[in-house]
Amino acid sequence: MRTIESIHQMQIWSDAERRATKRIALVPTMGFLHQGHLSLVREGRRRGDRLVVSIFVNPTQFGPREDLAAYPRDFERDQRLLEKERVDVLFHPTSAAMYPEGYETYVDLERLSSLLCGAFRPGHFRGVATVLVKLFNIVQPHVVIFGAKDYQQLQTARRMVQDLNFDIDVIGHPTVREEDGLAMSSRNAYLNEEERRAALSLYRSLKNAESLVRSGEKQSRRIIDAVRVEIEKEPLARLEYARVCHPESLDEVEEIEGEAVLALAVWVGKARLIDNTLLKC
Amino acid sequence: MRTIESIHQMQIWSDAERRATKRIALVPTMGFLHQGHLSLVREGRRRGDRLVVSIFVNPTQFGPREDLAAYPRDFERDQRLLEKERVDVLFHPTSAAMYPEGYETYVDLERLSSLLCGAFRPGHFRGVATVLVKLFNIVQPHVVIFGAKDYQQLQTARRMVQDLNFDIDVIGHPTVREEDGLAMSSRNAYLNEEERRAALSLYRSLKNAESLVRSGEKQSRRIIDAVRVEIEKEPLARLEYARVCHPESLDEVEEIEGEAVLALAVWVGKARLIDNTLLKC
Repeated sequence: MRTIESIHQMQIWSDAERRATKRIALVPTMGFLHQGHLSLVREGRRRGDRLVVSIFVNPTQFGPREDLAAYPRDFERDQRLLEKERVDVLFHPTSAAMYPEGYETYVDLERLSSLLCGAFRPGHFRGVATVLVKLFNIVQPHVVIFGAKDYQQLQTARRMVQDLNFDIDVIGHPTVREEDGLAMSSRNAYLNEEERRAALSLYRSLKNAESLVRSGEKQSRRIIDAVRVEIEKEPLARLEYARVCHPESLDEVEEIEGEAVLALAVWVGKARLIDNTLLKC
Repeated sequence: MRTIESIHQMQIWSDAERRATKRIALVPTMGFLHQGHLSLVREGRRRGDRLVVSIFVNPTQFGPREDLAAYPRDFERDQRLLEKERVDVLFHPTSAAMYPEGYETYVDLERLSSLLCGAFRPGHFRGVATVLVKLFNIVQPHVVIFGAKDYQQLQTARRMVQDLNFDIDVIGHPTVREEDGLAMSSRNAYLNEEERRAALSLYRSLKNAESLVRSGEKQSRRIIDAVRVEIEKEPLARLEYARVCHPESLDEVEEIEGEAVLALAVWVGKARLIDNTLLKC
């Protein structure tokens, strides 16, 4: 595995592979890798002749009061993990190279950026869309793999790729969970033992919602009320939002017809955790 | 020359040329071609193994009260002109294909979009940056040619290409003028005979400014005052703005050190005309 820090060197590598008609897969990450990431990496390995994993804690997707500085990092461990997965290139640019002085160009989605997490994290999806355009132009992938846990990010990437005419396949990969159901996330590192237990309320509330829908419930309001009750049982957990949405547009739906996504964000201690599930009628 | 309307077909053509290691030059236009455009086309012919000219009157760069519907068009004449210049592909997408229902992704520059013309045409450079990203992803050029008459557009393209890591050379080509000095522009078609004479005040004011600077004037305020006096002599002309700016950042400068750009926008009848010149101390 080659580790490339330089944007220019990365472009040269990708140019050469493209000329050799190799199919390039990209897994963009912020590092501090867990089994969820490694599952995306394996999906990328299957889908590309060449596999690039990027590790970049993107400052433009963090708000001024968010956890950019505290975000967990362990680059050497990440390197070892990716080496084992037969990754071809680990791309690891610096913030100074990605956002040099005078940087001023941003990509934004008028609608998708303002929904769900976007309403609570203004500027977050602008930062995500911007860094993805940059990574796409640098790595020039044919296929990009995203985890379904960050469901709004996945849909943002899909919409942006379509709108801006990137010739890239966007693949959503199922959320990987701990044995007890907690969705894997680098931010789980923020949880102490007690909070770790409280964090299970997210999974419980999703499972509860699924079973409500199986027993015939279609009203979003009742499903959300049940989620709220489940989260509020945990004194250490605070519900930021729970919404039932159209799986692509992410517009809220009052009643489930066919499929809908139940998405939620919950604060547990210093960790803002998100999770979601697909509800089918 | 091949005329391609389909975005997908255009991408297929460019993929094949890139795999054959051909260098693709792109000249993006809104059509109604004049000698200024053809001079860009010849520059593109020199710089690329393959030459694509796009004709697309981009709706997102027009404000709600601007001249989108009235913008002059003559596609068949344009086709004949480009055929003669040995253009390989004329790319001519529809608005419905470029901005399908639900389109919502935009590219903007925080600073450059708000200066000069941007202050009077809110959203204009957002539309320009957005359509350029789309055209770059569709045509996948190695080099793109812009006219220097649209100086802010040229600098916007340069900055955006650098910020978003497009691996593209941006070339600025000198403004082509009528014999009497009027900068060529598709919007000159809006001028009647009397207005056509009044439009010469732009060129006269630029020449006047150049000669002031040659005789030692460095104060932007005095240069701008002289421009204003020159334009106000013409009852049919109305100065929208005149600014002396740094040639790259486009920040206004109080005093010229080295080089500066004098840029102006003037209304003559229904035509909003722009022009600029490089001032050297």
